Amino acid sequence: MPAKKPAYELFYWPGIPGRGEFVRLAFEDAGVPYDDVARRPAREGGGAAAVQRLLESTGTFLTPLGPPVLRHGRVLVAHTAAILQWLAPRIGVVPRSEESRLRAHQIQLTVTDLLAEVHDTHHPIAVSLYYEDQRKEAARRSAIFVRERIPMFLRYFDRALASNRAGRGRWLVGPGASYPDLSLFQVVAGLRYAFPAAMARHERKFPRLAALHDAVAARPRIAAYLASERRLPFNEHGIFRHYPELAAL
Amino acid sequence: MPAKKPAYELFYWPGIPGRGEFVRLAFEDAGVPYDDVARRPAREGGGAAAVQRLLESTGTFLTPLGPPVLRHGRVLVAHTAAILQWLAPRIGVVPRSEESRLRAHQIQLTVTDLLAEVHDTHHPIAVSLYYEDQRKEAARRSAIFVRERIPMFLRYFDRALASNRAGRGRWLVGPGASYPDLSLFQVVAGLRYAFPAAMARHERKFPRLAALHDAVAARPRIAAYLASERRLPFNEHGIFRHYPELAAL
Repeated sequence: MPAKKPAYELFYWPGIPGRGEFVRLAFEDAGVPYDDVARRPAREGGGAAAVQRLLESTGTFLTPLGPPVLRHGRVLVAHTAAILQWLAPRIGVVPRSEESRLRAHQIQLTVTDLLAEVHDTHHPIAVSLYYEDQRKEAARRSAIFVRERIPMFLRYFDRALASNRAGRGRWLVGPGASYPDLSLFQVVAGLRYAFPAAMARHERKFPRLAALHDAVAARPRIAAYLASERRLPFNEHGIFRHYPELAAL
Repeated sequence: MPAKKPAYELFYWPGIPGRGEFVRLAFEDAGVPYDDVARRPAREGGGAAAVQRLLESTGTFLTPLGPPVLRHGRVLVAHTAAILQWLAPRIGVVPRSEESRLRAHQIQLTVTDLLAEVHDTHHPIAVSLYYEDQRKEAARRSAIFVRERIPMFLRYFDRALASNRAGRGRWLVGPGASYPDLSLFQVVAGLRYAFPAAMARHERKFPRLAALHDAVAARPRIAAYLASERRLPFNEHGIFRHYPELAAL
C-alpha cells in the first residue's frame, strides 16, 4: 500500500537551504510530514521545473513572484513569513494567543529583512549578475554589513529574548520553542558560515543567541533532521555564502 | 474642551512619506483619526526624538528595529505589512474573509520587497553612507533595476489585478478598494517620481496599474488627503528619490 500523500506541499528551489529552510524547520520540529516537491526526481514531478511551473501559472489565485510557496488543498501561500504565520498554529509551533502570534510574526519579518540584506552582501548590484561581476562592490557592502548591521540585528534578537519573561531569556515567544526560535537558529548558523570572523567577535556580547542556537539543535526532532539527508548544507548558491574574502572581514 | 486623543498612534520619521505613508493612506481612506506622533512639534512630544525614544525603550514588549510602529493601547506593532494586516480589519479597509486577508497580506509583503529594492537603488552599498559616496554603484544597480525588476514587479501586480474576478481587474482584493490598492497607488506614484523615463516605457504594457492609481487618487477621502498639508511630497531623504542621473535611465 503506498504511503498517504502529505497534506502540505512545499515548493522551493532544490539544492539550497535558502528561504525554504525556515519552513522545513517548522515542519521538522512539529513532526508533521510535508512534500518537498522540487526535491522529488524530475520524473516524479520534481526539480526546479516544478517551482517554475507554479510561478508561471495564472488563474483566479495570486501567482507568487518567487518561492517558497506552500500549498494545502486550495490554499496557496507565498512569502516565508506569511507561510509560517499561516502554518504555525495548524501544526503547533506557535503559542495560541493572538498576542504571541503577532509577536512571532514581527520577529519573523525582521528575519526576512535580515535575509534580504545578507543576500545583497554578495549581490549588491543585481541578482541577475554573477558574484564575480560584483565582487568589488560586494566587498565594500559586506565590510559595512559585518561592522554595522550584524550587531544591530543580533542586538534586536537578543532584546527580543530578554523581553520575553515567560521564556526566561531562552525562547523568543511564550514559555517554549516556537517557529521564530527555529528561524533564529538558522540565522545564527548561516551568519557563522558566511561571516565566521565577524560572528566570533560579535557573538561574545550576546550569549543568549548561542544558547538558543544550541538548544534548538538539541531538540530531538531537529537533531534527527540535521543528521538526515533531508538537511541541505549551506553552499555558494544560497543566501548565506562562504567566500573567503568576505568570511575574513 | 480639547479634542479627544486618537486611539491610534503612528510613529514614523517626520519629513518623508517613506514606509509610514502606507499606513497613513489606510487611515485616511477609512476616515479614522490617528495621531502622527513625530509630526507634532518637539515641545508637544513630537519630532524624530519621539521615534528614537520608542526604538530605545526596552521592557517586556518587543523593541522595534525601526519605524513605522503603530501603538493602540497596550498593542505595539512594527513592520508596515504587519501593521496593515493588524489594522485593516479594525478600520474596515480589507474584506472580512480570511482568504481575502491572506491575499492582501501577501500582496503587501511583495510591496515590502519592492521597497527594499527601491531603497537600495540609491543605497546599494550602505544605508549609513551618503548617496554621493555610492553614486557609481547606484547607477549600476539602478540600470538593472529599471530594466529587469520594475517590469517583474509591475507584471506581478498586474496579474494580481487580473486574477481577482470580484474586482473586475480594477481592485486587488475582493469587489472594492482595500489597503493593498492604496499601497499600489503609492508604489506607482513613487516609481514615476524616481524613474519617470523607465516607467513611461513599462507602464504602457500594464494599463490596469495606471487605472488603479487614478481610481485611488479620485476616492473622496484620498483626494482630500492628497490636497492637504498632511500629505508629504516625495523628496531626496525618502525611499523614492529623484536623482537626475537615475531618473533618466
